Amino acid sequence: MLPLLITPGDAAGIGPEIALKAYTALKDTLPLQCVGPEWIWKHAAARFSLPEPDTCYHVESLNAVLPGEIIYGQTSAALGTVAVECVKAAASACIENKAIGVITAPLTKTGIHAAGYDYAGHTNLLAEMANTPHHAMMLATNELRVILVTHHIRLSDVMSSINSDAVHDKIVIAHETGRRCGIPEPRIAVCGLNPHAGEGGAFGDEEQTVIYPAIQRAAEQQINASGPYPADSIFYRARRGEFDFVIAMYHDQGLIPIKLGGFSDVVNTTLGLPFIRTSPGHGSAYDIAGTGCADPSSMHAAIIMAAQQAGIQ
Amino acid sequence: MLPLLITPGDAAGIGPEIALKAYTALKDTLPLQCVGPEWIWKHAAARFSLPEPDTCYHVESLNAVLPGEIIYGQTSAALGTVAVECVKAAASACIENKAIGVITAPLTKTGIHAAGYDYAGHTNLLAEMANTPHHAMMLATNELRVILVTHHIRLSDVMSSINSDAVHDKIVIAHETGRRCGIPEPRIAVCGLNPHAGEGGAFGDEEQTVIYPAIQRAAEQQINASGPYPADSIFYRARRGEFDFVIAMYHDQGLIPIKLGGFSDVVNTTLGLPFIRTSPGHGSAYDIAGTGCADPSSMHAAIIMAAQQAGIQ
Repeated sequence: MLPLLITPGDAAGIGPEIALKAYTALKDTLPLQCVGPEWIWKHAAARFSLPEPDTCYHVESLNAVLPGEIIYGQTSAALGTVAVECVKAAASACIENKAIGVITAPLTKTGIHAAGYDYAGHTNLLAEMANTPHHAMMLATNELRVILVTHHIRLSDVMSSINSDAVHDKIVIAHETGRRCGIPEPRIAVCGLNPHAGEGGAFGDEEQTVIYPAIQRAAEQQINASGPYPADSIFYRARRGEFDFVIAMYHDQGLIPIKLGGFSDVVNTTLGLPFIRTSPGHGSAYDIAGTGCADPSSMHAAIIMAAQQAGIQ
Repeated sequence: MLPLLITPGDAAGIGPEIALKAYTALKDTLPLQCVGPEWIWKHAAARFSLPEPDTCYHVESLNAVLPGEIIYGQTSAALGTVAVECVKAAASACIENKAIGVITAPLTKTGIHAAGYDYAGHTNLLAEMANTPHHAMMLATNELRVILVTHHIRLSDVMSSINSDAVHDKIVIAHETGRRCGIPEPRIAVCGLNPHAGEGGAFGDEEQTVIYPAIQRAAEQQINASGPYPADSIFYRARRGEFDFVIAMYHDQGLIPIKLGGFSDVVNTTLGLPFIRTSPGHGSAYDIAGTGCADPSSMHAAIIMAAQQAGIQ
């Protein structure tokens, strides 16, 4: 069975700690492998009194990067290089069919930039490597799976950034993801953009002109998509089990319900890549890095979700 | 002690049923009075096997409206007239200092229009009677109190509809409401408009140009307001008790977290009127009207909230 790879993220943050904690808890039941130079993992094992990983997935490009002192909360060119090159190596392994997916511990923009790279984060790094524009961001908890049509743009740009193709694209991605996770006919709810989903055109018409045509097109392809629904009640219905996926038009529409219950089980997934990629929903938490008290729940959930998408669990 | 008045709403819906259920449960502990012609309340009492109200607050303007047959799910000019005139009579009583507040059971636009009125709903009817432009809509549950800066407008109009004065106005209203409810120094969180509250200007600048100046102005008036906060994490913090009020910039930003836990304890309050006004967070539910199975929880919570604002509880 091909492995699921775990990257350490920015080692000045909580990345290696939560990765190693979750790896240790799950390694006997899942084909997990830690990516990167052994010294990164040995350091975390010693610092947090955890067993060292059984084996490490070696990263050629890091042979010249010497182990340096790790100062928690203060990243460096070396740690930034390790963070980025591990992700690249993991993605290459997946593309070359040597691994089935990657679970990425959090990295930092500062680290990426200190190492001289220009990526905004994992998602565009991975999309560039996979050479696909058709990726999507999914945030999930135990209760909800939400896929965003638009991400980190100002609210006033949302209206001009959504179109029927983009909405349809996310519906198809949701359908394919559901099928991969073993749901025979994934039930997909699509949010409206305006209050009360426009209330029949009284507060906006994007529901009729943009969103509904995308749902129609998906329905014609035998995809179980419906809506547009008023965003203020659809997440409650989805939480109660009426839907498997919710398509949200913009960042806060999807993230507010995802984060309302806290963050410990939030998983961030990049869909539409030629391989599986999940990560915890939080960042590097420099403020508690090195203390040993970082909660691995979200990393744990990210590994489980990757395994589900791989059809292992 | 001045009474809190309860209006029946559209009697073709669940209004009188939930009103009478909640009245019956609370009348011994609170100074409640049902507004309207006796026949509306007697009909509900008989239909749902409830005691009739002890007394009714008589509405002169309805003397000529004869009791007609009530067909559930199908409103009429007579029922629409009763619904609207009861609200007007209750508001007048408050303005004339004969009552302290009003709890309104849901009415319907169809009913209002069938009776020949042109109101969009309770809020603009009451604002017109009270002659105040400075009203605000608050949605509350047991865990959250959210005040909206904009309401039922299309998302693309939100940006041009928020300004520092409007945001400041809502902060002041939140502060005054908190004080009236017995909170010495209400803690008010203000949402950003853009994802991550604009992330320092990377995704929009309304946080700096519009929202922050309003918070500053409030702070100079010794009001404990802070933000702008990323909307995707602030409601979690407020739920956990860190804040007493959250100011949301637009409908779905505030309503998504309010309704995520279900609707049974959602209360809608109009603030800034010269009297107290609360209502349940749901509508007339024609689909279950007359069956006797309407849940009065939200109406019950609306009465309790009115009493709290009146300093009775």
